[in-house]
Amino acid sequence: MFDVQKIRSDFPILSRQVNGQPLTYLDNGASAQKPQVVIDAITKAYAEEYSNVHRGLHFLSNLATDKYESVRGIVQRFLNAGSEDEIVFTSGTTEAINLVAYAWAMEHLRAGDEIVLTTLEHHANIVPWHFLRERMGIVLTWVDAEADGSLDADKVIAAFGPKTKLVAVTQMSNVTGAQVDVKSICEAARARGVASLVDGSQGSVHGPVDVQDLGCDFYPITGHKLYGPSGSGAIYIRAERQAEMRPFMGGGDMIDIVSKDVITYNKPPMKFEAGTPGIVQTIGMGVALDYMMGIGMDNIAAYEATLASYATTRLQGLNWLNLQGTSSGKGAIFSFTMEGAHAHDLSTVLDKKGVAVRAGHHCAQPLMAQFGVSATCRASFAMYNTTDEVDRLIEALELCHEFFA
Amino acid sequence: MFDVQKIRSDFPILSRQVNGQPLTYLDNGASAQKPQVVIDAITKAYAEEYSNVHRGLHFLSNLATDKYESVRGIVQRFLNAGSEDEIVFTSGTTEAINLVAYAWAMEHLRAGDEIVLTTLEHHANIVPWHFLRERMGIVLTWVDAEADGSLDADKVIAAFGPKTKLVAVTQMSNVTGAQVDVKSICEAARARGVASLVDGSQGSVHGPVDVQDLGCDFYPITGHKLYGPSGSGAIYIRAERQAEMRPFMGGGDMIDIVSKDVITYNKPPMKFEAGTPGIVQTIGMGVALDYMMGIGMDNIAAYEATLASYATTRLQGLNWLNLQGTSSGKGAIFSFTMEGAHAHDLSTVLDKKGVAVRAGHHCAQPLMAQFGVSATCRASFAMYNTTDEVDRLIEALELCHEFFA
Repeated sequence: MFDVQKIRSDFPILSRQVNGQPLTYLDNGASAQKPQVVIDAITKAYAEEYSNVHRGLHFLSNLATDKYESVRGIVQRFLNAGSEDEIVFTSGTTEAINLVAYAWAMEHLRAGDEIVLTTLEHHANIVPWHFLRERMGIVLTWVDAEADGSLDADKVIAAFGPKTKLVAVTQMSNVTGAQVDVKSICEAARARGVASLVDGSQGSVHGPVDVQDLGCDFYPITGHKLYGPSGSGAIYIRAERQAEMRPFMGGGDMIDIVSKDVITYNKPPMKFEAGTPGIVQTIGMGVALDYMMGIGMDNIAAYEATLASYATTRLQGLNWLNLQGTSSGKGAIFSFTMEGAHAHDLSTVLDKKGVAVRAGHHCAQPLMAQFGVSATCRASFAMYNTTDEVDRLIEALELCHEFFA
Repeated sequence: MFDVQKIRSDFPILSRQVNGQPLTYLDNGASAQKPQVVIDAITKAYAEEYSNVHRGLHFLSNLATDKYESVRGIVQRFLNAGSEDEIVFTSGTTEAINLVAYAWAMEHLRAGDEIVLTTLEHHANIVPWHFLRERMGIVLTWVDAEADGSLDADKVIAAFGPKTKLVAVTQMSNVTGAQVDVKSICEAARARGVASLVDGSQGSVHGPVDVQDLGCDFYPITGHKLYGPSGSGAIYIRAERQAEMRPFMGGGDMIDIVSKDVITYNKPPMKFEAGTPGIVQTIGMGVALDYMMGIGMDNIAAYEATLASYATTRLQGLNWLNLQGTSSGKGAIFSFTMEGAHAHDLSTVLDKKGVAVRAGHHCAQPLMAQFGVSATCRASFAMYNTTDEVDRLIEALELCHEFFA
């Protein structure tokens, strides 16, 4: 059974007050809080079991290496990858997508080749491709969101042309929670020999993921959004794509032989992991993913669906609030604006009531441009949020309405 | 006063046992242990003060941002940089040197241009330059270590030619502890318009650093070697060099405007920091550097000099042990081999006595090649090590000698 109060009690920060009010943390789209098991794992790693990994033979190094490397199998299970060698550790999705851009796309694409993107993308899934446009003459082909914030998978597929080499698309909008039918997109891509990158930063947090079922080539996740430590992450890279990639960063661990004139590389996934890795944050990410799988990804998805449904009803009841993104089946992420008040001012008033939301462009300026706004307020929910917290958000918004009306 | 017992008591892991023996941790060159203040700072950050940084306006986001950004000033003081805007956060030296390679060197160097390297370098300061050789036809010009493991600065300077654009040299060998006169090298480089990168991974751990006095352009440090968290680091980049650099990784935070067709970038240092940073590990690194500065970098250097001197005397007393690197004034890092025993076997026997050392090529294959060995055993000391621990190392080595002789 999904027991939200039990889950809340696992997260120490949730019992704190902010500005004299109980914390209502609705900024999970930016980063999620951490359960005590993750914090304890970090403490234990540093206080009792710390060493550098891989190249040592002493007790602590073997212990740290075992703990660190065991996370590859945890991520494999979390994503249902075919092999743990298809899991590359990163510092998060940003580094992961840059890895794909530098190590795969820069190696394989030529001037005039096309990458299909959508206006739902986070800057992490836009800027690395702009680099290729600036530096190599790659053409970016954009597919617009629908008016309700959703994405029509058929329009993405229709955008594939003879020069399309890659489609890079999010599974869930970080601005509106809109879910994308990435499976259809990946299927069509595969049929046309187009590589597919699915940005799992948000999607992986809110429900089960099966990269084999999705059929994607690249699927990055971000540890700190998955209740894990900052600076942790991983990317699933299908073995066939790994074989097409050159290394990204150079340094220790990713090499085989280094001489003055010649260099050879380690085999994947190590080939893509240079230098001392984020040892303890990766161990912490493993604990966080185990914690989520212990609750059950289906249970999380089901609970968050009821939360999303309740929040939608309550927010739509505020006829002075503009909700950006109202697609059906969307995740529990809500962007909104109010006449006469800047998003930043809303956020500041909400904060006085202990309600933490984010205001700004949410690293999604193309979507802001489509919505015709420069910024929104965003309330993004996690598995530990409650309908009571939805009510507190609504009360605080009503206060804003009184204040700014 | 430098009180090594007080310092030891600050590091919880040092009181643990390994294989039934007190831990003698001499693998600090790979990664150092963490004082309780660093562990506590991490716990507090996650349990009480966590949020994403920069783009929020709520209480926790402001708090986390203040704590995170304050570390820039701490690193500035630690390195005596002219401005905190010259400090770029990274996940460690490997990412930092790749940043210089991709963002500065790839932008400015042309086929046939030369980079001067030395055989003292760690793979992190070799492989990124090999990429430029492989991909762009850059020429790597090597300067060999002397027989005693030292580096003759004049030979480095003599290697500068009309096509030399960069010299990349370590301040302290991670294999032998040899100290390099990087100031003379940087001075000569500057006079010839050659950019200079000083790898501070080891040097910054063992004594005071003043990047303005050194006159270097780039100076990376690694948090986890500086008693800070894994996955933390920073690089000093002189403002004039920052102005010559394109971005490295693309994503949130490093941009100004992102549209479908156009992109503009944030100003340095943010231009070089893409996506959600390593928030908590950076906060932890700041606490670690404050801890070191509280003890005093001169005090640390003086104490470690006595430790190095004692260890040198005792190790040289073992006439069946081959010490690699015996240059005067070197840091407390010792590499050695023994006839009839592989370095890995030595390390395994030492481990049984609780003595943690590293065996292998230490990410320095060119130096191994020069020494004519494939691997060494390395005992690398930190400020918390003692002469008693030197004795324990010697006793354990004597056991190895009995065992393998």
